Amino acid sequence: MIDNLDLMKEIAISSPTKIVLLVIDGLGGLPSPKTGRTELGTANTPNLDRLANKGICGLIDPVSPGITPGSTPGHLALFGYDPLKFNIGRGVVEAMGIDFDLRPGDIATRGNFCTVDETGLVTDRRAGRISTEKCAELCHLLDGLVIDGVKLIICPVREHRFIAVFRGKGLAPDVSDSDPQQVGMVPKSVTALNIQAEMMANIANKFIAQAKIILDNHRPANMLLLRGFSHRPKLPTMPEVYKLKPAAIASYPMYRGLARLVGMEVLETATGIKEEFTTLKRNYSNYDFFFVHIKETDSAGEDGDFERKVRIIEEIDSALPTLLNLAPDVIVVTGDHSTPALLKGHSWHPVPILLYSRWCRPDRVEQFSESACILGGLGRLPATKIMPLAMANALKLNKFGA
Amino acid sequence: MIDNLDLMKEIAISSPTKIVLLVIDGLGGLPSPKTGRTELGTANTPNLDRLANKGICGLIDPVSPGITPGSTPGHLALFGYDPLKFNIGRGVVEAMGIDFDLRPGDIATRGNFCTVDETGLVTDRRAGRISTEKCAELCHLLDGLVIDGVKLIICPVREHRFIAVFRGKGLAPDVSDSDPQQVGMVPKSVTALNIQAEMMANIANKFIAQAKIILDNHRPANMLLLRGFSHRPKLPTMPEVYKLKPAAIASYPMYRGLARLVGMEVLETATGIKEEFTTLKRNYSNYDFFFVHIKETDSAGEDGDFERKVRIIEEIDSALPTLLNLAPDVIVVTGDHSTPALLKGHSWHPVPILLYSRWCRPDRVEQFSESACILGGLGRLPATKIMPLAMANALKLNKFGA
Repeated sequence: MIDNLDLMKEIAISSPTKIVLLVIDGLGGLPSPKTGRTELGTANTPNLDRLANKGICGLIDPVSPGITPGSTPGHLALFGYDPLKFNIGRGVVEAMGIDFDLRPGDIATRGNFCTVDETGLVTDRRAGRISTEKCAELCHLLDGLVIDGVKLIICPVREHRFIAVFRGKGLAPDVSDSDPQQVGMVPKSVTALNIQAEMMANIANKFIAQAKIILDNHRPANMLLLRGFSHRPKLPTMPEVYKLKPAAIASYPMYRGLARLVGMEVLETATGIKEEFTTLKRNYSNYDFFFVHIKETDSAGEDGDFERKVRIIEEIDSALPTLLNLAPDVIVVTGDHSTPALLKGHSWHPVPILLYSRWCRPDRVEQFSESACILGGLGRLPATKIMPLAMANALKLNKFGA
Repeated sequence: MIDNLDLMKEIAISSPTKIVLLVIDGLGGLPSPKTGRTELGTANTPNLDRLANKGICGLIDPVSPGITPGSTPGHLALFGYDPLKFNIGRGVVEAMGIDFDLRPGDIATRGNFCTVDETGLVTDRRAGRISTEKCAELCHLLDGLVIDGVKLIICPVREHRFIAVFRGKGLAPDVSDSDPQQVGMVPKSVTALNIQAEMMANIANKFIAQAKIILDNHRPANMLLLRGFSHRPKLPTMPEVYKLKPAAIASYPMYRGLARLVGMEVLETATGIKEEFTTLKRNYSNYDFFFVHIKETDSAGEDGDFERKVRIIEEIDSALPTLLNLAPDVIVVTGDHSTPALLKGHSWHPVPILLYSRWCRPDRVEQFSESACILGGLGRLPATKIMPLAMANALKLNKFGA
């Protein structure tokens, strides 16, 4: 059976109309026990409300009802890629997070420095959360090793976390983790999950053995654990699928990396909400699709800071006229998942969405909030349907069938 | 995984209850900028509103959100057939459109007469839209040719359009089009897409070569282009799947052809809304499922005639008592897609639906309109779920599982 992307590929046409997809990371929330209103319901958002009034609203499920998505599946779904079909490995996600230029053939893994006792048992999987500076120092000791012709590239991420990239010929990612996921055990040896991956497993084990020697007198960071061996996935690109010329405006490396994976051009931008909208304005004539990503709402939600999340939403609303004045043919405002301040983390709750175009069929929703969106004309739908809807409203899709 | 039709086949039972599916072609619309109300929202429809009040309402997506369906996928979905799974070729659709009796083994193609210059380049893909009479004359010149034992049947459709049916043994439809889809190119030669289709490609090319000679001095129609080679698909029939004895009442050949494809009996009917309801009444005792198709709403929408679409919906409403007086166990009123007068064509917007039966669980909808249906108890659902719901409400489905 024909899937979402194949169908789009078949009926998408190029046209001068423009789409702006504004992703407010972690947008959805939960009501404050004091007021009964969520972060979005509390924020004073006259511009978003006016847009909701003229447009059509609803709720989206990024993966499926009940499923709390990571940022990667949340965004893939918004771009129209089924996140259950396109799985991007942990190593790759971590590499994208530091803007690492992963090449075809590279195998990336997520690494932790850890503490082992004199018998080799892991006593702390995070090596007491060493400083990022210390981590960089240790990475430098390991970086550049060559094992059987395969080069190791080791880059610090944060605290005890780093990435290890294996660069060489004939490497396959289908190997098990060395991380035992609990203390009191020895690091596992990496094993091949199929015959093609035997060389990878072999080199990974040799690297781990060398690292143990090099790190020996660096207690608490006297060992390392690797997990999520993965390579850059081959995704159909948005230009191929949608015949769009897409650009991404995002301050955080991870979202820039994701955008690059689906074939968007990543624009240089200053950090900040107003600054991102200014970048949009400056580049508006050169592309027909813009993914604008705002991270701060999610960070406030993760910190459990209800008030800060409200303030950031209000800040977005007051910056919105810069976007509105460009008069894109289609504007979509939504999030990649919910991050309720009350839960201090991503959640499974569906995410409010509003879509405005000259051709949308407006509903009776007059405010952009979770509770108003329940009664919206889009109903509740999978996030993968957003791109087809945006494309349709931009008159960029041919009729299907005769 | 078990699909919609397999599930129905497993649990459907025959019973004396009756279902009427009234399809108002292109029913859904967009609000007039003057009044903010759609065609259906504007029309005075006391009978439909009363039915909506007693019944349960919602919105359906014929193919998927954002996808604008042609008439064929729109109807297949209403009959419970996944339109992404059952693809019916252009040639077959065109043949159904002129009530051509396509036999198993026939390969039908859609044809255009076109103009080529002295070097063979296409200069007009539609031969200046010659008259239908001229088209019939040219078809007559080509009709009846026999090539390698395969008979050619050529029938005019409208203006420059015709169908070419290849009738013979061993023909397969998997060949490319000869239509280059743009001027300034020579017609393509037809190529086999697999080994079984080589004979078909060979005969098609011989036919095209002969046609070129025959049409040579008939400028502007001095050549032809073929596309959409296809054969009558083998669909499971509604009697097999639903254990129904279904009848179709439709004035337009294309819908009669579609109904025949899924195993309905096509009833003789006079043209017109009242006339179709009279046909329903006359045949009511002989069948347990009726597909009643009204085309005029779609035509008004395609013409961009908002007022005419409103008037036709009102006409349907006033004729409705003939149907209501028969007291079918289940009445479904919906469309195969939206055709907003504002867009002058089919669109992706979901289609209002109302379902009435003694056993439906009514909602609070009191008017049959797009905006009221948003809040209906059926919610927003794929059109393929209509038949299971109609069957259930007619008490024609057994329990699934123990």
